[in-house]
Amino acid sequence: MAHPVEPPFLTAEQAEQAFYSAFRRCDSRAMASVWADDDVICIHPGSPVIVGYDAVIRSWTNIFANDGLPEIQINLLESTTTQQLIVHTVEEVIATGDDTFASVLATNVYRKYAEGWLMVKHHGSLVKAPSESHTIQ
Amino acid sequence: MAHPVEPPFLTAEQAEQAFYSAFRRCDSRAMASVWADDDVICIHPGSPVIVGYDAVIRSWTNIFANDGLPEIQINLLESTTTQQLIVHTVEEVIATGDDTFASVLATNVYRKYAEGWLMVKHHGSLVKAPSESHTIQ
Repeated sequence: MAHPVEPPFLTAEQAEQAFYSAFRRCDSRAMASVWADDDVICIHPGSPVIVGYDAVIRSWTNIFANDGLPEIQINLLESTTTQQLIVHTVEEVIATGDDTFASVLATNVYRKYAEGWLMVKHHGSLVKAPSESHTIQ
Repeated sequence: MAHPVEPPFLTAEQAEQAFYSAFRRCDSRAMASVWADDDVICIHPGSPVIVGYDAVIRSWTNIFANDGLPEIQINLLESTTTQQLIVHTVEEVIATGDDTFASVLATNVYRKYAEGWLMVKHHGSLVKAPSESHTIQ
């Protein structure tokens, strides 16, 4: 396993690598170092919005307490890049059992601070199988 | 009903107003004027990612052809603002029948171009009722 990426994060890519590394290792301390201490936003799939650093980190700690170590494969689909703010669209393929996978789409937003790039928003949502799809919006 | 906002959009708020106005009126032409002609990203709730201007506009045209005029109430939950890129977290409360509503959370990304602010990403996902919630991520 690659060595965990530690802050400061010199690029959004490093912050994203640290985010998914913390997620895979269920490491709350590492997850806490990825997020900006600000009015950050986290939307876990199907769940209401969570606002603010403390509540967001608590939500990850709860997830890490409940689940085993997840197997997650990441595909970066698109990056919108400016000097201060970068938005990634990421596909997360999460193993849910023997040969079964869930496909989650994530919008990850990183902002440049004096201390480096930090995550300010994570919006994850489940892609439903075609038979479950619906037509809202 | 307020007069539709036309481009150029001098602020991200104007572009967002035009986006939801087009959505409410099922107006494909107006929707086409809101998006940047670029590698834009649209994720409709539960659906796979759509990449690129033509495919995104086609997806909205298909939605507008299938549904009646939707009743949508918008609450801006948070705005991350920089000079070139702005990310809004929005709650969309969509009427789905007599006294029934769906709650959709949207991450809307706007970018400043020479011709004004345009939408570059829209990620919508349904908030499930507590009984349907799941623990992936």
